[in-house]
Amino acid sequence: MARSGPFTLHCTSSECGARRGEVKTRHGTFQTPVFMPVGTQGTVKAVTPENLKEMGAQIILGNTYHLFIRPGHELIKKFGGLHQFMNWDGAILTDSGGFQIFSLKELAKITEEGAAFRSHLDGSRLFLSPEDAVMVQEALGSDIMMCLDTCIPHPADRKQTIESTDLTTRWAERCRKAHRNRDQLLFGIVQGGMYPELRERHARQLTEIGFDGYAIGGLSVGEPKEMMYDIAEAVAPQLPEHHSRYLMGVGTPEDLVEGVRRGIDMFDCVMPTRNARNGTLFTSTGKVVIKNARYREDQRPLDERCNCYTCRNYSRAYLRHLFQSREILSYHLNTIHNLHYYINLMEGMRQAIEQDSFMAFRKDFYGRLEGE
Amino acid sequence: MARSGPFTLHCTSSECGARRGEVKTRHGTFQTPVFMPVGTQGTVKAVTPENLKEMGAQIILGNTYHLFIRPGHELIKKFGGLHQFMNWDGAILTDSGGFQIFSLKELAKITEEGAAFRSHLDGSRLFLSPEDAVMVQEALGSDIMMCLDTCIPHPADRKQTIESTDLTTRWAERCRKAHRNRDQLLFGIVQGGMYPELRERHARQLTEIGFDGYAIGGLSVGEPKEMMYDIAEAVAPQLPEHHSRYLMGVGTPEDLVEGVRRGIDMFDCVMPTRNARNGTLFTSTGKVVIKNARYREDQRPLDERCNCYTCRNYSRAYLRHLFQSREILSYHLNTIHNLHYYINLMEGMRQAIEQDSFMAFRKDFYGRLEGE
Repeated sequence: MARSGPFTLHCTSSECGARRGEVKTRHGTFQTPVFMPVGTQGTVKAVTPENLKEMGAQIILGNTYHLFIRPGHELIKKFGGLHQFMNWDGAILTDSGGFQIFSLKELAKITEEGAAFRSHLDGSRLFLSPEDAVMVQEALGSDIMMCLDTCIPHPADRKQTIESTDLTTRWAERCRKAHRNRDQLLFGIVQGGMYPELRERHARQLTEIGFDGYAIGGLSVGEPKEMMYDIAEAVAPQLPEHHSRYLMGVGTPEDLVEGVRRGIDMFDCVMPTRNARNGTLFTSTGKVVIKNARYREDQRPLDERCNCYTCRNYSRAYLRHLFQSREILSYHLNTIHNLHYYINLMEGMRQAIEQDSFMAFRKDFYGRLEGE
Repeated sequence: MARSGPFTLHCTSSECGARRGEVKTRHGTFQTPVFMPVGTQGTVKAVTPENLKEMGAQIILGNTYHLFIRPGHELIKKFGGLHQFMNWDGAILTDSGGFQIFSLKELAKITEEGAAFRSHLDGSRLFLSPEDAVMVQEALGSDIMMCLDTCIPHPADRKQTIESTDLTTRWAERCRKAHRNRDQLLFGIVQGGMYPELRERHARQLTEIGFDGYAIGGLSVGEPKEMMYDIAEAVAPQLPEHHSRYLMGVGTPEDLVEGVRRGIDMFDCVMPTRNARNGTLFTSTGKVVIKNARYREDQRPLDERCNCYTCRNYSRAYLRHLFQSREILSYHLNTIHNLHYYINLMEGMRQAIEQDSFMAFRKDFYGRLEGE
């Protein structure tokens, strides 16, 4: 067991890159590999903090861009930070806002100084520098802050990728300097597009600056799955062993398994929550599209192997009825199930790594999916 | 203490018509006066059965019309009834479908035989006779069933009111005959429009047929408040003392207080749940329209006197943020608060009647409302 800063590495798989560890924060220590439910606007959509606790969520993600625009980081600071504002006493990671600003496309303009953009709510002109991004996240009081990065469209040529990645490096240096409250951890974000050698070069540059943890950004942006896995596989070993590694915005249950296999410790994605509201539910035997007529009289729980509140108490037929009727309870029950599925999958992987049986777990996982 | 069938009368106010009692059902005994949250489509919108239990709900209402159309009473019967389908083990009252069918207006046609109507979902032609209404409610397995009644538009002339009320009497007789499962209680519905003497006549007719309880229908249909109170005051004493009295579809907190004062035991209304979703919240000092800018930085709970989950854990500013952001959690937290307010108000009235201090409670209630 070795330790360096907030991350403690408990053990590593003998078969692959999978690692079992933990990250210490101001709001408790979370076990890795971990999945972080996304709480964009100061709430994980359709569930309460108590629901999150019951399903075993240890850390959630907040979106700096959204909170900056509404209700504003200054207001949240007055309430003692995001934890108190939203009544969540577990850990919180905030993104930097960079990804959302890039998603605004023509509403955003990137310069050396920072990102100028227009609010998607009222069109007002706003600006976020790397220093602002840190200051806003300090006001939000998150446990883990992310550097402001630039995102590279896919596909992008080598020249464009280098320019964008070098700007991210300069911004990372500025974020590091602006980082005053060392109780809040600051993570760097590795970019470099789909060029493994640019990724490796960027990983070295960020490591030289030195962060509390490292993220891999700019993936899951439209590239083929295999390319994403290859980049993760190339970058992870380039990152310091005794720091946590976070694969941003990824992904499907299969992506989580493949990420852990390649040495990733942290994940976030809107997929379980968004799919829940769209009626697509994850189960140990594959996806269930709950509006399907085949579930009309189905008295079984969504997933016979699941122990969540939804599966303990409701039938597929009832969940279908709620979804067809557009009842708010549908979104609530579906979200509880999908998040529980993701969190439980991570718990299974953590146990498998401890027992050094990760590849057997992975085989079982795929075997059950194909069994349906 | 006198008893007659399912209703037990504990005590009566010495100052007014207010009564304290209880109603025994297959799913527990509920204390009266009681407010019944409305669960139209097999769920009280935006809350779980556990939330309802925590706030002290004893009995909820299900809408026969909606469940008949979707998912269908036969499907619910296969699941062992509505209680099991929706995972609620407290008492359930189902309406007859009559009020909803009348609300369809040109989509409905009333004959001696019953109500022909078109589904609001797909326009399909449907028919509900008094016997069907009982059969459907038996399939749903509710604890209290309502007779199919005809609703009188407001205003309506005397002739039209007599014709419609007499048809309701004939339908009530047919419902009584069709009522086989005596474990499920059957209530009659007093109509008679805004004519006190027709109301009294109808109350006598229904009492002669004999039901497990009596409802006052056809109020809160656009008439002035005072007229509604006058009708309730005229009808209540005409109903058998040792049977429960239910004022259908009423109303505001003030209406509940005025109804109890006049001897009403049971109430239902969509107001607390619908207003919650519209951001209008009931508090001991009056209504709070949560989107109002004055609550932007308000760190206080919605109601300092409220002990509900929402008030224990969240600020007005956070509730405003959720509402402005159209977050599902907004509907959930607002609904919990509004229903808790209604249920707690009834609990306060029950205690006041026990202590024979109902009129002092009423004075306090209005005093606080005006204090804001």
